[in-house]
Amino acid sequence: MKVLLLGVDGELGWPLALKLAKAGHEVIGVDNLSTRRMAYESGTDSVFPLPSPAERVMEAKRHLDVDINFIIGDITQPGLLKDLIRKFRPDAIVHFAEQRSAPYSMKDEEHAVFTIQNNLIGTMRLVYAVKEVDPTIHIVKMGTMGEYGTPNFDIPEDIEVEAEINGKRDRILVPRKGGSWYHWSKVFDTDVLYYANQLWGLTVTDIMQGPVYGTRTSEIVHESMRTRFDIDEAWGTVVNRFCAEAVIGHPLTVYGKGGQTRGFISLEDSVTAVKLLIEHPPDQGKYRVVNQFAEVYSVRQIAEMVREAAEKVGLGKVEVHHLENPRVEKEEHHYNPTRRILPSLGFRPTRTLRDEVPYMLEDLLPYKERIERFREGIPPKTTWR
Amino acid sequence: MKVLLLGVDGELGWPLALKLAKAGHEVIGVDNLSTRRMAYESGTDSVFPLPSPAERVMEAKRHLDVDINFIIGDITQPGLLKDLIRKFRPDAIVHFAEQRSAPYSMKDEEHAVFTIQNNLIGTMRLVYAVKEVDPTIHIVKMGTMGEYGTPNFDIPEDIEVEAEINGKRDRILVPRKGGSWYHWSKVFDTDVLYYANQLWGLTVTDIMQGPVYGTRTSEIVHESMRTRFDIDEAWGTVVNRFCAEAVIGHPLTVYGKGGQTRGFISLEDSVTAVKLLIEHPPDQGKYRVVNQFAEVYSVRQIAEMVREAAEKVGLGKVEVHHLENPRVEKEEHHYNPTRRILPSLGFRPTRTLRDEVPYMLEDLLPYKERIERFREGIPPKTTWR
Repeated sequence: MKVLLLGVDGELGWPLALKLAKAGHEVIGVDNLSTRRMAYESGTDSVFPLPSPAERVMEAKRHLDVDINFIIGDITQPGLLKDLIRKFRPDAIVHFAEQRSAPYSMKDEEHAVFTIQNNLIGTMRLVYAVKEVDPTIHIVKMGTMGEYGTPNFDIPEDIEVEAEINGKRDRILVPRKGGSWYHWSKVFDTDVLYYANQLWGLTVTDIMQGPVYGTRTSEIVHESMRTRFDIDEAWGTVVNRFCAEAVIGHPLTVYGKGGQTRGFISLEDSVTAVKLLIEHPPDQGKYRVVNQFAEVYSVRQIAEMVREAAEKVGLGKVEVHHLENPRVEKEEHHYNPTRRILPSLGFRPTRTLRDEVPYMLEDLLPYKERIERFREGIPPKTTWR
Repeated sequence: MKVLLLGVDGELGWPLALKLAKAGHEVIGVDNLSTRRMAYESGTDSVFPLPSPAERVMEAKRHLDVDINFIIGDITQPGLLKDLIRKFRPDAIVHFAEQRSAPYSMKDEEHAVFTIQNNLIGTMRLVYAVKEVDPTIHIVKMGTMGEYGTPNFDIPEDIEVEAEINGKRDRILVPRKGGSWYHWSKVFDTDVLYYANQLWGLTVTDIMQGPVYGTRTSEIVHESMRTRFDIDEAWGTVVNRFCAEAVIGHPLTVYGKGGQTRGFISLEDSVTAVKLLIEHPPDQGKYRVVNQFAEVYSVRQIAEMVREAAEKVGLGKVEVHHLENPRVEKEEHHYNPTRRILPSLGFRPTRTLRDEVPYMLEDLLPYKERIERFREGIPPKTTWR
């Protein structure tokens, strides 16, 4: 298949590009490289130094014998997406080209406005480009389980759900409640894609994913092919941050009580699942919502697992600190999302968090000095209030 | 009270400014004059010729002896709102500064993107400005009953509602479903204000209003003080458009079956209600949702009323044409929104649609030739599909 991958330079974008290309798909990637730039604002950088886009392409050719087309461009600019679709005629468009950090979106007014504008306008440009050039293209959008907040109902794999309100029954959009401007921008994305599906019959897969962790995929066969790995308050997700903290003897930074419960998935399983969804599109004109995660843990449990693993590989005693929670979120809550679609396509997670953490520690150890340099960027400085 | 009125040059903004000023409130108005410019795109203009901003201020002084401060500026620009709030220290900020036309938002990609961006970024700037300069300021935002679509449940006057979903009960945001990019932009506005209320305790009145009709308010005592009156497909709301059509012998243009049912309110009653809501803010930190309309009619019923009135004042036989509906909307549906808050503040509508239409025809008749010129702009050209 021919896949236009928006956000090819990102943490998930690059490993997905490698996996798709290695499987024989044609990959045309687009990125404005904004995460590279934005990550510098925390005084940090990816733990694994990133090759330039041209080097990434060359290393992929050298180690995997694949050709990835890497185009530098900003999809919020008028005309860009339409031109690319006309030129390459993709079967599917994967939309990862969003500002993806909740804390970044909460820093101040300009970061909030940038997040809303960048994410929402990118998605608007996407639906119009597909509608106008080829409405049969399958749009695969990365959303987040965080769009729902922490509701008391079981999160379905559907865009609409039957509800009873004041004694009357109706089909409503599955209720969402963002926990940051970033999360709200993703809620708005979903609304835009839903409406484009209703109006014009666009075919959409909307992936609700939990936090991703890990350093390896089957295609990352050489250091030069690694994807970005962030550990700071804005860009580091919880498992990655804990592992880096353990490597430098920094206490593991649990926000609040740590009862926050999420569905986690490894990097390898995440990109494998996306590949599967691309290869198995829904029926034309259908809006498919997929809950994508492998294991459910609380932040407390993860800290405990990382602590144990770190002590086992000889990193010495690791402390767990409970910081005042900078976010406004429930620290104990119901969590039970449905999972049917990926299993029905044959997807089986191949990694567990417990097994993967030791490999992560092993991969991070050679970069201990670099992580030390980023130490100041780890503790949360952005508060939601 | 001191009121900062965003969108002072608009159809509702100007009559509200006059009513507030006449009642002794201090009014600082802001407008980027975008509706004047955008209305030209339909090849039309306000039926009543609009004085310039400076003339409006002079005429208000001359006829009502009030001083209105009219500032030309765009609230989506960084810093503007913060500067104005610091300078004027308003008690309330009325937010009417949005692109308010559904068909305009559906014209094409650029109109859609402009609508989403303008409305959402303006609201983002507003919540940050209030939070940072004075979080006690009462925000009065004009929303639309159209945010809900046409649900099967009774629309409450609340931001959250108890719902049962798959056997579990939860408090959810009242479900919304936009019927155009414009309507979605208003849904997003509501989400942004709700989240700012949750995070920072901002005090909000969110007015869900139905279509407004009419030419007169108690303060419009001279032709030079009239507010804009649009009749084209993008800017003309249904009653206003029907009246103008009757005046020039154009068939009344009902979209589809005309069973679309809405809650209507006269210009006079609309601005009176907003004034009352400003004068009676909710408790600090509260999010108050107000359903603002006076009478419920279907489009068919309105066409019938305008036809009768026109024939009675001697305009001859008026035809009613059912055009193919350019919109994607239900033409027959449930409609039963709650109304408690405005009545509890003593609000009683003073106009009925049946009584007001003859006055509208009387006011429009002297402009018959001008309406004729705009004839081409009346039939719908923008289609939702």
